Amino acid sequence: MKKVSVFLPLQDEERKRFESAVSGAEEEYAISFHGSAPEASLEEIADANIIIGRFPADRLQEAKSLLWLQVQSAGVDAYVAPGVLPDGVRLTNARGAYGLAVSEHMLASTFALVRRFPEYMRGQARHEWKAVGNITSVAESTVLVLGLGDIGGRYARMMKALGAYVIGVRRSDSSRPDFVDEQYTFEQLPGIIGRADIVAMVLPGSKATEYLMDEEMLHRMKKGSLLINNGRGNAVDLQALCKALNEGHLAGAALDVTQPEPLPADDPLWDCENVLITPHVAGNFWLPRTFRNVVDIAVENLRRFSHGEELHNCVNRQKGY
Amino acid sequence: MKKVSVFLPLQDEERKRFESAVSGAEEEYAISFHGSAPEASLEEIADANIIIGRFPADRLQEAKSLLWLQVQSAGVDAYVAPGVLPDGVRLTNARGAYGLAVSEHMLASTFALVRRFPEYMRGQARHEWKAVGNITSVAESTVLVLGLGDIGGRYARMMKALGAYVIGVRRSDSSRPDFVDEQYTFEQLPGIIGRADIVAMVLPGSKATEYLMDEEMLHRMKKGSLLINNGRGNAVDLQALCKALNEGHLAGAALDVTQPEPLPADDPLWDCENVLITPHVAGNFWLPRTFRNVVDIAVENLRRFSHGEELHNCVNRQKGY
Repeated sequence: MKKVSVFLPLQDEERKRFESAVSGAEEEYAISFHGSAPEASLEEIADANIIIGRFPADRLQEAKSLLWLQVQSAGVDAYVAPGVLPDGVRLTNARGAYGLAVSEHMLASTFALVRRFPEYMRGQARHEWKAVGNITSVAESTVLVLGLGDIGGRYARMMKALGAYVIGVRRSDSSRPDFVDEQYTFEQLPGIIGRADIVAMVLPGSKATEYLMDEEMLHRMKKGSLLINNGRGNAVDLQALCKALNEGHLAGAALDVTQPEPLPADDPLWDCENVLITPHVAGNFWLPRTFRNVVDIAVENLRRFSHGEELHNCVNRQKGY
Repeated sequence: MKKVSVFLPLQDEERKRFESAVSGAEEEYAISFHGSAPEASLEEIADANIIIGRFPADRLQEAKSLLWLQVQSAGVDAYVAPGVLPDGVRLTNARGAYGLAVSEHMLASTFALVRRFPEYMRGQARHEWKAVGNITSVAESTVLVLGLGDIGGRYARMMKALGAYVIGVRRSDSSRPDFVDEQYTFEQLPGIIGRADIVAMVLPGSKATEYLMDEEMLHRMKKGSLLINNGRGNAVDLQALCKALNEGHLAGAALDVTQPEPLPADDPLWDCENVLITPHVAGNFWLPRTFRNVVDIAVENLRRFSHGEELHNCVNRQKGY
């Protein structure tokens, strides 16, 4: 018998879908449902062969019988870190579930910066009816998208549909999708970043992306350009960003992720001009559809696992994804 | 000889384009350039056969020799008002020049409200890292676009490209463009407005649109829906809007136009939750491309006038546009 522990805030209807997923399987499956991880006893976790949902990486050591972990997130940096998951445990993520929510947040951030809404909102707080000056347009912009996975790809596709010239930058030298006009690898970034009016980042957390946007790279950006980060906070050196903004080298930034999180209350970034800070809310389950997507992925994968089929969204733990 | 007075802040290159436009004409044309109207003497205005650019409606009575007025704006409500222009004076506007700038502002406003950026910006001002709650998505929304001219049409096209279901509402019962899923006339608005998650208005100023969004119409809107106004401020009853927002009937509003303008400093709207107020900056020349568009339209129309060809962007003064 396989024991399955599901850590997702499910409705009855959704629980039934998990039960149905294992029906007709050769082996028997016992599924226990938990709202969140701390509710589960140590014993339960030690027995679980399959864990699905939001489960803290630092408790995975307790899962001595684990065969497969289906996480609710797209990012897996916490799970692929050394010593977190025993060798041989399979790891799948919720890649694809967050595409709509996060790409729309990136689009919203892009337009907010282009229209200088953070500055207008400050004027509004002072009840001030006053233009802040010239703007640019998305349709006339060159947008560099760093990371062309599900989220970055959707964002790139939307930006192209809205008339922007889109340059994609990805880790590997794979074939160029039709929604980017040009494509490069990370290694080529320093040479091309200066062409972009807007740099939009949605990179998974990894050693390779840590402080990718350091002082030097920020200075390679075009004067007056905009930076958007929706991947991992540690991809941007916030002190260097603050400097670039205050010096007027960058015209604005939108951050949904910071290093550290929460952003400390005394960080000068909060008050930088034309900066939009949101508290890591682009994804998560703030868009109800995202949660339904996660449930769909998990249910289908449980059906596949229990019927001996190949899993979707497998993470190559050597590569990180 | 025809006398032309141009009231636009032109560079030398652009002035030359106006001069070239009349070359080869049968009659002689004398063009005088003014940065703005008050600089022009009464005498000059009395002699002008053609006025091009930003010219105050209340000084048009001085233009005794006027044959044709090319305004820099798309809206013409100030010029078609009774007694402003003598009969027989032709009127052309800058329809099309503002499409990119204003439609992108509407798109930016839409996404800002959907993502609750006005609320997040208030949190940011308090240096507060805190989620405000659930959001919706544009791709899952039904958007009702009130006014399908150049600006509304572009906005509708973009929203459809981003996955929204688009309902267009226009004055006349003309054929449905491919970028709206359904189309209705103003008379049908009360019956369909309740279906929209987002109502985006970009109506020209006229008697028919005055206080179109009154208390009753606002209450016909779907609970939790969003209102965006980029047309004329008097199309929305702001007191009723404030009430609908405070009662939680509407989830947000973005206004680039208000009645009156500027919005008085003590208006409660400034502080309403999830409200974005911008000081009538969507159009104007804040996007440099807009000015170039206006110049293009004016130069081409001057060429047409001086060569006896039909003018573009003619305004039917009986209908207002």
